[in-house]
Amino acid sequence: MKRLPAIEVDRSLGVTAPLGFLAGAAAVGVKKLSEKPDVGLLVCETDAQAAAVFTQNKVCAAPVTVSRAHLAARRTMRGIVANSGNANACTGRRGLADARAMARLAAARIGCPAEAVLVASTGVIGRLMPMDKVAAGIERAAAARARGPEADLAFARAIMTTDTRPKQAGVRFPMRGRAVTVAGASKGVGMLAPNMATMLGFLTTDAPVRAALLRKVLRRAADATFNCLTVDGHTSTNDTLVLLASGLAFDAGAKPIAEGSAEAAALEAAVFAVCDSLARQIADDAEGGTKTLEILVTGAAGDAEARRAAAAIANSPLVKTAFFGEDPNWGRIVSAAGYAGISSGPETMRLTLGGLVIFNRGTPVEAKAAELKAAMKAHDITVHLDLGAGKGRARYLTCDFSYDYVKINAEYTT
Amino acid sequence: MKRLPAIEVDRSLGVTAPLGFLAGAAAVGVKKLSEKPDVGLLVCETDAQAAAVFTQNKVCAAPVTVSRAHLAARRTMRGIVANSGNANACTGRRGLADARAMARLAAARIGCPAEAVLVASTGVIGRLMPMDKVAAGIERAAAARARGPEADLAFARAIMTTDTRPKQAGVRFPMRGRAVTVAGASKGVGMLAPNMATMLGFLTTDAPVRAALLRKVLRRAADATFNCLTVDGHTSTNDTLVLLASGLAFDAGAKPIAEGSAEAAALEAAVFAVCDSLARQIADDAEGGTKTLEILVTGAAGDAEARRAAAAIANSPLVKTAFFGEDPNWGRIVSAAGYAGISSGPETMRLTLGGLVIFNRGTPVEAKAAELKAAMKAHDITVHLDLGAGKGRARYLTCDFSYDYVKINAEYTT
Repeated sequence: MKRLPAIEVDRSLGVTAPLGFLAGAAAVGVKKLSEKPDVGLLVCETDAQAAAVFTQNKVCAAPVTVSRAHLAARRTMRGIVANSGNANACTGRRGLADARAMARLAAARIGCPAEAVLVASTGVIGRLMPMDKVAAGIERAAAARARGPEADLAFARAIMTTDTRPKQAGVRFPMRGRAVTVAGASKGVGMLAPNMATMLGFLTTDAPVRAALLRKVLRRAADATFNCLTVDGHTSTNDTLVLLASGLAFDAGAKPIAEGSAEAAALEAAVFAVCDSLARQIADDAEGGTKTLEILVTGAAGDAEARRAAAAIANSPLVKTAFFGEDPNWGRIVSAAGYAGISSGPETMRLTLGGLVIFNRGTPVEAKAAELKAAMKAHDITVHLDLGAGKGRARYLTCDFSYDYVKINAEYTT
Repeated sequence: MKRLPAIEVDRSLGVTAPLGFLAGAAAVGVKKLSEKPDVGLLVCETDAQAAAVFTQNKVCAAPVTVSRAHLAARRTMRGIVANSGNANACTGRRGLADARAMARLAAARIGCPAEAVLVASTGVIGRLMPMDKVAAGIERAAAARARGPEADLAFARAIMTTDTRPKQAGVRFPMRGRAVTVAGASKGVGMLAPNMATMLGFLTTDAPVRAALLRKVLRRAADATFNCLTVDGHTSTNDTLVLLASGLAFDAGAKPIAEGSAEAAALEAAVFAVCDSLARQIADDAEGGTKTLEILVTGAAGDAEARRAAAAIANSPLVKTAFFGEDPNWGRIVSAAGYAGISSGPETMRLTLGGLVIFNRGTPVEAKAAELKAAMKAHDITVHLDLGAGKGRARYLTCDFSYDYVKINAEYTT
């Protein structure tokens, strides 16, 4: 695991903060509460170099299939059309036709080929898209497109489902005497254990960068941030993370960032920081979550082993309910690592919870009960399990498991 | 997956129903509510051929380590000492010494070497055993040992933690003109995703059978029953399943059952039936569970693929909360299979819920809403997902996920 660089992230910067991007949104009733925006459009004024990662779920939604095909056909994109309230997943041929129609309608308003538009949807699985509403939404979102904080927030809100707040983040850094910006918006609260991407995430930058490098940067950033995030271990059918680069921080013809250069490292650090902030915002807003948990596993035989152990801890309902109950039932943490296919046993382990060592080399440590109780009351808690067997490390973000998780998901109506 | 034979199981038969076994129990306050029995002893009057399977968790409890060593040293056993209220896991050297002392104390009362006694514990992880109480409990359980329904139930109750009822099952079948019995008791309600065994399960038989065959029979039965059972996907540190055979249905020197014979098949069918009944009783009594769900996956590329898909469905908190809410949100079922590493996609799938087809070949079926609503209200619900890709099949048992699961596990105090 690469340690994340400490970069200041500005949550007031959204998808139109980098030069060259416009966003619009509309509320047309795809979501049940029709006053909430549910169709969003992100437009690049020029051909943006594009990279994306999608869900690895074999049951993938129609917009994922369509966006994959568009990205296979072209390296550059002009826009993204997104909706919430309906996932357009498990909808057969009709669903594919609907996703293609969404791209076509958006492209007509942007003035580009349909293949230059990506499509993303989120919401209930197994329902046909209400295409009359969606078509009206695309018209209205296109007419409303603009840049600036209001446009950013309108777009971030249009992709929300049970999210309680919009999620965005941006980083501005110097390059060749200019300011370059990387910014993004995301959504996600449940059915969340991204595998190669998150539920929905859209990043933009005005850095001059070619798609080939963009893909590598995005994949590495997603792997260490969104792909190390879980709410309920259930990978969605619609996960989509896109990064578009306009290059417009510089004049046309500016030399693209070279792979392996200091500029590439600066860009990657900024993309990492934005992804990390968005992932943390998702964990903070998890369905029913009352605490944000950072699960750090070190001393593993390798990074893959560390990752398996961190994921097992982060996904265990027993671990998550213990944190909800503020009960330092640490045996659940150690035993979750134990069934994750690790090579070492408890004899070499050390478990630290909120800074207090409570299990060391196979034996419980007499922790100060009052301090431990106080540590469990914090909103942000770091669990650090050192396996004592090697140099592998991984970090997972997750949340606790509350009555409200059950309530939200028992009542989220089909 | 082998289809289970339809054999009548008698839940009034417990561990002393086969000839040669005695059981006793005592309440000594290892569990907080000291009026409940928490130490149990199972004794065989003769050297019983023994087979056992244990947790695959790398963080395994001291009694598992000790029992494994005893079974490696001998093929026959004279007894099992078990306790609830304390798992004796993550307790270091002191825990190992305590588990060995439990075997030694029980052996002294039985009149056999310490290695001829297996040890099993269940309860909170990371606490040292209160050995004064446990020693007194072993004395009292040994003094109380007897055969018959009361002794069976006392033993079954002594291994309960948050179980609301004792779990036992037996089968009686003819062999060489005599009646042979296979019976057993088990416990388990949470931290339950057995891997090669269940939380605790003890089977006895008076069939004349050698340990080598016993091991094969037990492993196959466990694999298709306890190992296809999950409450929360969290494999415990203490899973132990033992099968002891006294041979006392026949006179000393009776010819042991030959591998591959009709007798071996009859024995295996009986062991299967008892394990299946105990596994189902565990699913019925799962922490906070209000429904028992049978997840049947067919048409997979192979049995392993079917098993992965069934396990993913059975472990998804989204699937489980939907059943608690009696909400036919079937997209969650199909999408869980989709992230389980299957080779086929939604185009070939068919999903049947409570006998109603609701998704077929990638497209939602217009199900009769009233019938579907009624199907979701049942206590026992079968979910059948046919992947349409091959002949692999698997069956998993699980429960729904309720407010009470969160309550029980947020408040189960360390």
